[in-house]
Parts: sequence; C-alpha cells; structure tokens
Amino acid sequence: MTELRHDPIQRRWVIIATDRSKRPTDFLQETAEMGGGGFCPFCNGHEDKTPPEIFALRRNGGVANGPGWDVRVIPNKFPALMIEGGLDKKAVGIYDRMRGVGAHEVIVETPDHAMDLAEMPVEQLATVVGIYRDRLGDLLKDRRFKYILIFRNHGAIAGASLAHPHTQIIATPVTPLQVAVELDSAKQHHQIKERCLFCDIIAQEIDEGKRIVYLDDQFIAFAPYASRFPFEIQLAPRQHLHNFADASDADVVGLARAMRDVLGRLRKALKDPPYNFVFHTSPNTETTHKRAHYWQSLAFDFHWHVEILPRLTRVAGFEWGTGFYINPTAPEDAAKFLKEVQP
Amino acid sequence: MTELRHDPIQRRWVIIATDRSKRPTDFLQETAEMGGGGFCPFCNGHEDKTPPEIFALRRNGGVANGPGWDVRVIPNKFPALMIEGGLDKKAVGIYDRMRGVGAHEVIVETPDHAMDLAEMPVEQLATVVGIYRDRLGDLLKDRRFKYILIFRNHGAIAGASLAHPHTQIIATPVTPLQVAVELDSAKQHHQIKERCLFCDIIAQEIDEGKRIVYLDDQFIAFAPYASRFPFEIQLAPRQHLHNFADASDADVVGLARAMRDVLGRLRKALKDPPYNFVFHTSPNTETTHKRAHYWQSLAFDFHWHVEILPRLTRVAGFEWGTGFYINPTAPEDAAKFLKEVQP
Repeated sequence: MTELRHDPIQRRWVIIATDRSKRPTDFLQETAEMGGGGFCPFCNGHEDKTPPEIFALRRNGGVANGPGWDVRVIPNKFPALMIEGGLDKKAVGIYDRMRGVGAHEVIVETPDHAMDLAEMPVEQLATVVGIYRDRLGDLLKDRRFKYILIFRNHGAIAGASLAHPHTQIIATPVTPLQVAVELDSAKQHHQIKERCLFCDIIAQEIDEGKRIVYLDDQFIAFAPYASRFPFEIQLAPRQHLHNFADASDADVVGLARAMRDVLGRLRKALKDPPYNFVFHTSPNTETTHKRAHYWQSLAFDFHWHVEILPRLTRVAGFEWGTGFYINPTAPEDAAKFLKEVQP
Repeated sequence: MTELRHDPIQRRWVIIATDRSKRPTDFLQETAEMGGGGFCPFCNGHEDKTPPEIFALRRNGGVANGPGWDVRVIPNKFPALMIEGGLDKKAVGIYDRMRGVGAHEVIVETPDHAMDLAEMPVEQLATVVGIYRDRLGDLLKDRRFKYILIFRNHGAIAGASLAHPHTQIIATPVTPLQVAVELDSAKQHHQIKERCLFCDIIAQEIDEGKRIVYLDDQFIAFAPYASRFPFEIQLAPRQHLHNFADASDADVVGLARAMRDVLGRLRKALKDPPYNFVFHTSPNTETTHKRAHYWQSLAFDFHWHVEILPRLTRVAGFEWGTGFYINPTAPEDAAKFLKEVQP
C-alpha cells in the first residue's frame, strides 16, 4: 500500500511507499566520474588558478593567495550572478526581469583533496560551519541581496564538477520560491497559533520518536514525515532561531556534531551517496519594508534548518513538471536504517 | 552577464545565462542503459506479462489481451496508487495523510519496440494522443480523483525503466503543487484582467517571435521566457481551452502535428535526448464545490498545455532544495537552435 502525506512547511502532498520500502542496498550506485583530468584548482599550492580569495583561515600564518591555508573562500570562477552594478528591474510585457546581480562564492573546506565532510573531526567541521555562518552574516550586509543560499553538491550526480570538498554560497536579489513558501507557512502558522511551525514539528517528532536520526540537547535530525526523497533528512536547532547568521559558537559546534553524525550515517549506510544540502534561513530583512513593517519583516517566525537530500532516485523529471513526488522509502524505515549503522 | 527572469505562471525567478549560452553540442550525452535484459513485457505477443488491458485499439481485430493491437492501455504492474477503497483522510498531529487511492495506467503507444514518438507519422501519433485524451476523460468520471497526470519519461536519465514507447497516467486525490500554483496564477490574472494569462503570454510570444519553435493556426510551441531548463518547451493550443479532455479530434490532430515537429527537432538537435513531458490541464471539477462555487470551480480560466523538459543538465539537487533554477541556455538561443534543424 502507498500513502499520501502532506508537508505543512512546503505545503505539498507526497506519495510514500509504506509497505515495501526500498532498503539502502536497493539503490543503484552510480559513481559518475568528475571532469578535470587530475588537476585540481582547489588544492594547496594552486591558489593562482582561482580568483583572489575573499577570506582564508591560516592557522600557521602565510600570505593571502599563497599556500598553507586551512579553509579558503573564493569567488566562483564561473559565477551565476555578478557582484557589480544595480538591479535595473523592468517589465518585459507580461514578464519581469532584472540584471543578474548577486554573489557566488566557494568555500574550499580543507586543503586535503580526499577528505570527506562526513569523516572530518567535529572540531574541524565546526570551523568550516562557522565560516558558512560568517559569510552569510557578511553578505547580509549588502542590501541588494534578498536571500543568501548556502548549499553543497557532493558527487557528480548531485551536480558537483570538482571532487575537492567545497560548499557554495549564492546571494540573490530574490527569495527562492521554495523558501518563500516555507516563510509563508511559518508566518501563517504563527499568526493563528502564536507558535513556531518548526518548533511544533520538532515537538511532535520527539514525541513520536520513529523518524529521528539524531537528537541531543541542541539539535535534531529527522526524516521528514512527507519526505520527497529516500533518506531525506531535516536538521534543525531545537531552540527557536530564525537566522543562521545569529547562531552562537556553541550552536555552530552543535550543528557540526549533528552534521558529522548524519552525514557519517548516510555515508556508511548508502556507500558515500551523492547528496545536496541546502540551508534555509530567514531572508535579508534589511532590504525591504524597513519602515512600514519592520518587526513583521524580520521573519522571527521562521526557524532555520538544513535539508540534506541524497540523490538516489532518478525519477525527477516528472516531479519537476508537477511538484508531485513519489518516495519509495518510508521515512520511518529510512530513520531505522540510518540508526542501525555507526557514523 | 546573467539575467533574472520571472515566470508569471509558475511565479518563480530563474537565472538565465544570456551571454554565453550553451549550445546543443555542449550537453553531455549519457546513454544510460535500460534494465530488463532484452525481454520486453510491452512487446507484441507478451500480453500475458502485463496486467489485463483496460483498453486496446485493434484495427485488424483480435481478442483482448492477445497480440495484434495497435495501442494498448494497461494498469501499471507496480502502481504508485491503488484503485480500490476510500481515501480515509485523517490528521496525524500536525501532519495530514490519506490512503494512496488513485489509478496508475500505462499507454503502450505502439507494438514496435524501436519506434520513437519523434519519428512516428502524424496520423499514428494523433491516434495515440487521442487515447491520452480519452483516458483522461474516462478517469475524470471517478469523483475520488482530483487530478489526472499524463506524463512521459523518455530515456533512463529521465526515469524510464523500459525502452518500449509508453506514456503514463496517474490519477491522484490531490492536485500537484505546481499545477495548483498555475491554477491560482490563472485565476488571479483572470479576476483582475478578465483575460486568460496563457492567452496573454501566447499573444506576446507571437508578437516578439524570438522564442517560437512551432506555430500554426491551431498550436504554438515556444521556449518559455523564464525557462528553468535548457531547451524547455511549452506547447499550447492557441484557442482558449481549459480541459484537455474537451479537445476535439481536430485539436488532437493539431497537437500531434505540433508534438511531432517539436520532438523531432529536439531529437535532431540534441541527439535523442532524455526528456519528460507533462500535460497540465484543469483539475477534476466534479469532485468539489459542486453546489457552492460550481462555476468558479470549473477552472475555465486555466489553459491546458504540455511542458516538454529535456534532461540535459545535472544541477538538480540545489534546485530541489530551493526551487531556484540556473539555466545555461537562453530560451531565445534554444529556439534558434531548434529552428535551424529539420524535424
């Protein structure tokens, strides 16, 4: 039997196979090759093959754009959006356009080409995650940017073109559709109930217990009730916080601990699967409504979280055309499989 | 330079590379293998390997579930939704669920395993398309079903598990999210302007001309202004019609002619690319609001159309997590490339 389940955050129905869930071993392992032919522009000593760095952590000293760094932030060499100029918004008949103004950065997470985030010591991962937060905070200062996306493509199937561990940040002058839907769901829930939608979901997940993959005092990771994809995970702070840029150092360490656990379990259970993760946080509230609706526009009713999306199934085009997902692994089973392995 | 463009139907912003558009030859051709090891359950003479047929066209006679058919409609052997029973809707705390009730059919479009829809004679394709329409009309009679999805996966990358030409129909008790957004856009536009949003877009596309791939008296095919994917095509009747089930036989022939042209161009320009197509039509208006809002619920303000989505890029996980798309081929260029080849 299958079941239709509704996600109150993304407001979509999903078909879940509840009877005969696919196990981790049922998923095809395609190890698509990366391009690049051996030379890696992100490796130590190749700093001149990238644009000049925006930021670098050099614990043992050294000069900018030279070797010896621990983490390095650079502009994307082939940016989707450009930093210069104004938005030049205009109508094109019934359509609308603006110039592709924004930022597109790459966080090279380690000089070690073969290191996997899922195997990084928690302290080292916390340093990396702290840089995600700091870049977010820095980019939020630019009032042209409405939303800052932190996302990671791991493996060629997930869209990575280089194997060297890295995460990307795109600052855009618009809020992406799916984030906008989530913001609206959170706002409506809060208006009616005076409670946070995500906090309510976290409370129910802890009560039910059966979809939890990781839980400590600070963070929860669970397979969402209406998961679109097999082994999809949502990771969130248990305490209500709308903006990841406001995360404390203790939050960052807690997030690193939770990420290390969950990514480690996925790596173990699914043999280093391709995956994407995306941070969902509040939009840039400095840009708009500064006077009229300041308080409301702060999106205090949102609750930042990380979506981890393993790329195990190919049935995506139909989903693209409809927004309707068929998930062959029940989230309860996904959580069980992930709990059975040691990260 | 890149540009942000807004789609008034799907209400999303898309990043379009306007300067250095990727050409058809830039796209990786992955010819992923189909499973099945040579035996095809959809071939003539293998009728006992599928569930009993729902409908078959047998121009030269023959018995049900025997060989000699031209087109054959069967239930999916591994259905996402089951035809039996009630919906049993209920709340699960903050979530909602219902039983996976629906229909899942397969239209085997020809007994010829090696035939491609893009190479089928228009008359034969019209027969197939007429059966899409008739199955839609038949399934709309079941009031448990709110939406009927007609979609096709062509090629393993696009999610097809069998190479034999076939299209699928899923009848669901809910309207898929993306269709719901489109219905709402159409309704709001009509409420304000007393005109159809799609008719307005078609008029502008004909005026501008530069994104049109196919145009005759009956149908238009164009690369949408805010295309999410390279070589994405939207195909629609020029005359306002909300429900594909109400298409006349002449409409069906016109649609077949347009589809044959567009699919032929895609096949030629992109070397038989994997693709999905999805019909977007009005939802089942018999199910709800029968008394209170009958007229409004008929969705007369919608305009049925077909989305054709070639699967050329891999950058999907990020898009899944945000609803934000980066398209490396401007639709103006896609249209130009497709116009240059002969279907």
